[in-house]
Amino acid sequence: MTIELYDLAGAEDERRFSPNCWRVTLALAHKGLDCRRIPWRFTEKQAIAFSGQGAVPVLVDEGEVVADSWRIALHLDRKYRREPLISGEHARGAIFALKNWLERAVHPAVLKVIVLDLYSHLHEKDKAYFRESREKRFGMTLEAFAAGESAAIVALRQALDPVRPVLSEQRFLGGAAPSFADYLLFGPFQWARVMSPKRLLDPEDPIFAWRERMLDLHGGLARAALGYPVWA
Amino acid sequence: MTIELYDLAGAEDERRFSPNCWRVTLALAHKGLDCRRIPWRFTEKQAIAFSGQGAVPVLVDEGEVVADSWRIALHLDRKYRREPLISGEHARGAIFALKNWLERAVHPAVLKVIVLDLYSHLHEKDKAYFRESREKRFGMTLEAFAAGESAAIVALRQALDPVRPVLSEQRFLGGAAPSFADYLLFGPFQWARVMSPKRLLDPEDPIFAWRERMLDLHGGLARAALGYPVWA
Repeated sequence: MTIELYDLAGAEDERRFSPNCWRVTLALAHKGLDCRRIPWRFTEKQAIAFSGQGAVPVLVDEGEVVADSWRIALHLDRKYRREPLISGEHARGAIFALKNWLERAVHPAVLKVIVLDLYSHLHEKDKAYFRESREKRFGMTLEAFAAGESAAIVALRQALDPVRPVLSEQRFLGGAAPSFADYLLFGPFQWARVMSPKRLLDPEDPIFAWRERMLDLHGGLARAALGYPVWA
Repeated sequence: MTIELYDLAGAEDERRFSPNCWRVTLALAHKGLDCRRIPWRFTEKQAIAFSGQGAVPVLVDEGEVVADSWRIALHLDRKYRREPLISGEHARGAIFALKNWLERAVHPAVLKVIVLDLYSHLHEKDKAYFRESREKRFGMTLEAFAAGESAAIVALRQALDPVRPVLSEQRFLGGAAPSFADYLLFGPFQWARVMSPKRLLDPEDPIFAWRERMLDLHGGLARAALGYPVWA
């Protein structure tokens, strides 16, 4: 039975932009598992109501429903022991902290740079929902939130300081090969790449070279995605 | 041959306050290794010149000299295989990132709360050095840096957001038992505890309960240190 993943899409079915869904797409590839990625939009809450909540990713694996990318990663490691995403208890706690840090420090910094491009690539039926929910969250219009782009890029690069020394020393956060930590960090970059032509990183940045390695993984899965391929 | 650790001290030889030295003190206890903790002050650069740099911790282990707490942890795991501090490649990258995050986000937030208390407990011969070097770094006087204590405590608690969900789910960042990640996070709390009566955490915070567990480890080693024992 094929694994199914409900996966956030933009205007086109093939524009898959959610950072949290990309974590799972790459985690499945890491394990060598096939999956059917079902395009889903923010306003299609009914389509995933069976999961008991309203956000993607939602994974359906032989009838078992798992929502939330962190819980999905733990599920995959429990059920499919080969090629661990998170190897050992010491890794689990530290990668969970890394996830929380990324969502608080890095995702918002990326969103500030790309939000208007992102909005322009949403499906028409999602635009009002996105604008209203995000403007409520930010306490300002999308346009006001997006103001000051060059300062936002500087802030993003600074927000990435904790991982830069790691990627100067080793090929992946996981060491010689990627762990789930790499997929977590890659999520916001792929989010940007699919939705925006903005250049987030200096090509001299060790994170830039790491991102190239991530794009090459699993047969160039992320590189092949519909988006803005030129980043140099 | 006993391991020696050059360990930052305050006015009294027994007031050991460096967060980075506490990482190592607890790492040695974790491995069941004895060590002689030699009191050292900021201005005693000559005493550690043999290490080729000017900061503690400096470890001397059977003639091998290792400076920097991260390099010391890796050295201890290489040389003494029992009770790993950092188990596996997935843990190593993520814990290194956690270290970098702590030093950028949490250490400065703690220092802002405790800096004047810390200054008052320094050895007389270190006071001018500390004031001058830190005022240069902050771009303001110690007193100006310390202004706004209650806002600084709020900011510190917020800075800790990435680790709070981890410590709500498990006893230590390392899982059921501590890893080096726990000693890294504990460093700034012990820094505060040795130098300041300020109460950093709400007793309802899961990080508060974790800190109690950390104080109990290894026969209550950190709890027994000269400092401010009442925290509730």
